[in-house]
Parts: sequence; C-alpha cells; structure tokens
Amino acid sequence: MYSTPSLYYNKKSFSKINKHTNTKSTSMGEVKVLGAWGSPFSRRVEMALKLKGVEYEYMEEDLINKSPLLLKHNPVHKKLPVLLHNANPIADSLVILEYIDETWEGPPILPKDPYERSKARFWAKFVDDECLPAMWKACWSSGEEREKAKEEAVELLKFLDSEIKGKKWFGGDNIGIVDIAANFIAYWFGIIAEVVGLVDEVITQEKHPNLCKWIEKYNKCSFVKENVPPKDKLAEKFKDGSPPPPPPLNSAS
Amino acid sequence: MYSTPSLYYNKKSFSKINKHTNTKSTSMGEVKVLGAWGSPFSRRVEMALKLKGVEYEYMEEDLINKSPLLLKHNPVHKKLPVLLHNANPIADSLVILEYIDETWEGPPILPKDPYERSKARFWAKFVDDECLPAMWKACWSSGEEREKAKEEAVELLKFLDSEIKGKKWFGGDNIGIVDIAANFIAYWFGIIAEVVGLVDEVITQEKHPNLCKWIEKYNKCSFVKENVPPKDKLAEKFKDGSPPPPPPLNSAS
Repeated sequence: MYSTPSLYYNKKSFSKINKHTNTKSTSMGEVKVLGAWGSPFSRRVEMALKLKGVEYEYMEEDLINKSPLLLKHNPVHKKLPVLLHNANPIADSLVILEYIDETWEGPPILPKDPYERSKARFWAKFVDDECLPAMWKACWSSGEEREKAKEEAVELLKFLDSEIKGKKWFGGDNIGIVDIAANFIAYWFGIIAEVVGLVDEVITQEKHPNLCKWIEKYNKCSFVKENVPPKDKLAEKFKDGSPPPPPPLNSAS
Repeated sequence: MYSTPSLYYNKKSFSKINKHTNTKSTSMGEVKVLGAWGSPFSRRVEMALKLKGVEYEYMEEDLINKSPLLLKHNPVHKKLPVLLHNANPIADSLVILEYIDETWEGPPILPKDPYERSKARFWAKFVDDECLPAMWKACWSSGEEREKAKEEAVELLKFLDSEIKGKKWFGGDNIGIVDIAANFIAYWFGIIAEVVGLVDEVITQEKHPNLCKWIEKYNKCSFVKENVPPKDKLAEKFKDGSPPPPPPLNSAS
C-alpha cells in the first residue's frame, strides 16, 4: 500500500470531483479523499477533516470499476476510504482518524490523557469489530441467523448504552472518535432498518435509553447533518435490490 | 469495562502470581497484567512493558475458570490480556500497546512521525484482522476449507514480506508495534505448524524470503527469547487434543 506514494492520478477515473473549501486556511498541504458517498467509513474521514477545518478534494470512487489510484494506494484491501496527504496514502478509517488528529490543529478527535485515549480507542474498535458486523448481519440475513444476529446486536449495543450514560457525546462535551466511528449506528442503521423491516427490533428505548438519546442528539446536530448522505438517496440505494456490501462492513469494498 | 476501576482482587483467583522486577525504577505506578502464558496477545503486552523497563505484576488467568477481576475489568470481551495501571483497566492488546507507549518513557513502540505512525497502525491491524484469522484457520480446519485458508494466508503474508523487505525490523532499526503484534507469525505459528503438519506450506522461503529472514532474526533475538513461552511447553499445549481457541484469535478467550 505505502510503497510508491504518488500524486499522479487520472481524473477520468473518478465520476465526481468536488473541491471543499473550509474556513480555516493555514498551510495544510494537498489533501484528497477517495470515498463513496454512501459509505459511513468515507464519511468518518470527511467528518474528521471538517472538524479540523482542513480543505480537501473529494473524489468519488466507482466501486464496481475501481480506479487505478485506489488499487495503487490500497493494494492490500482495495477498499475505501483512502486519504492522500501530500501524496502519502493512508487507509483504514480508524487509522486515518488518528492520523488526522495527529497532523492538524483544531478540535481534538481523541482525548489528550493516555487512559482516556485508550478508552476511546477501545470503544471505536468495539463499534467496528463487534457492533457493526452484528447489526449488518441482522439487516441482511434471514430466519434463525437473523434472530441470532439481532440478539447479539442488542446485547452489544447495551455496552455502548452504558458507556454513553450521563455523557453528552462519547467524546465528552465534544464529538470525538467514537461518535464519528458510530455514525452508522446513529444514522445509517435507522434508514436501513426501515428498508429491511427492523425498526424497533434492534435499538430500542427500553433496552438502550441512553443510546437512543445520543442518536436523537446526533441526528439533530447541524455538523452531523452536513456530513451524512441524504436519507432518501440512502434508502433508495438499499431498496434497489442490488446485493449489499459483504459483512463485516469495516470499509467499503 | 471501564466503569468501576478498582484495585481490589482476590489473590486466590489466580493460579500464579509473579513479580517481575526490571532494572528501570522510575515512578511508574502499580502495574498488573492479567494474562495467559501461552497467549501471544498477553506476551505482546509483557514484551512492550519490558521494552520500556516497566515493573509489573503478572497474574496468570485460568481461562476455564475466569477470575472475578477479569470479568470485572473486561466485561465486554471477557478476554485477555488486561493491563491494570493504578487500578485503571485497559483491554485489547493493540490498545494496550499504544497506552504503554504513551505512558512510559523508553524505546518507542510507535514511530514519532504521524505518517509513519499510521503505517505502523495499519500493519499491526492487518496482522490482527487479516493474517492471524487466515493462519489460524489454516491450522485448525481441514479439507477444502484448509486449502482455501492456506492460500489466503500465503497471499496475505506476501504483503508483510514486501513491507519488511530491506528493513531490519518492521519498526525500522528497532522492534516496534508491528514486530510485537506479529509475534504469533514469527514464533507461535512455526510451532503449531509442526503439530498440525503445515511446515513449509504457508510461510515459505520461495514466497516470503524477506519475512523468513525476519522470522529467523526475531527468534534469535535475546529480547524476544525472554518474552515467548518455551517451545516444548507450547507444542504440548497444542498437541494435547483439547479444542483450540476459536478464531479469529484476536485475544485469548
């Protein structure tokens, strides 16, 4: 992946190129994001860059016909998102979030204290490794397999419910890495649940009262609203009958 | 996991308690490791603490009869290792390695430069998420499933082979987080391969020449030798017919 960082790319490989210009304009180098509009993992990276006020160029990847740039810079997973900073590629959304936090000034994405950082890392990993695969499986399986995945997801989410209890955000007073990592739980899952008939069957007021409060706050937050895809478009994507991405969904393949 | 950190524990819960005293003796607080002697994940943590010269108390867990301390401090995964630092519990070996690096002076476990750090994190995660599950499956499955896992492991390890090419350690001139995370690949796997009849079938000179050189150097390194379990004892553990721990083996369950 990291062997031959290069700035070269063929613009024609990308179906859409947007230039985001944020207010902060200190020297931040050339920043590009290879993403997919409907991917919660790409959106994590965009959210973090916007939190820091970093200008970046967004390049929409066609996952059916992956660009040479994606294959070159993430040959290991061939997945999104990839961040290119001054031609250096970084893959894996949680790794990218840490890189962003360590590279640019601005609101912190991880806490400063080592113990608090370890907790943030633990829960972000928990979201990726445990919650998302179970939630995804609950959405896209059937019969006994679905029931089992639903039960598992309910139990796992209870841990998050307990963690967010009494706090505004997982990051404390401000949005942090866990809030960003959990964007699927807060936003994507509700939309998919409607499509696949799982509303009130996984995340419930009764079992996850604190998580529900966080979800409500999250989806009302103007910063979040600017960094998630439109609900209708997302619902359409999942309704259209095309096969869903394979679990465990830890990036867009 | 982190809700009620407490130093209280019942010594009788642990089958073995060792006090490690290293040469460095600056104020480092009370450090305990809940581990299992045969677990590469516990050994990662011990290796990192020894690298930093941190004194710690090692507490061997009985995985058949888990201690109240383990269940209390890692209620999410109920897995090893757990680090207790001044009664604060930290779980998940890669998270613990970052904590150790951020908490104590001494040889760095991660590089200083943010881009180099991101690469180290990427490869450590790659070892855990990709290589270990495939290698483990190759060991403990049969027939077509085994053949598929073997092929997958061979291909994945080629990426590591390419990454280590021309370098002494994954960490550069010194052992770093990827070298520590890959202890299973360097040491455990060779022993298990002998037990299950996979010698020269996954890691080969032909396909992984650079990785083989690294493995040889790794297992000859005196620091490593002091931080891995005895070969005979480990082989015996895997020979004894008891079912192996379930994949993906990202900690000792």
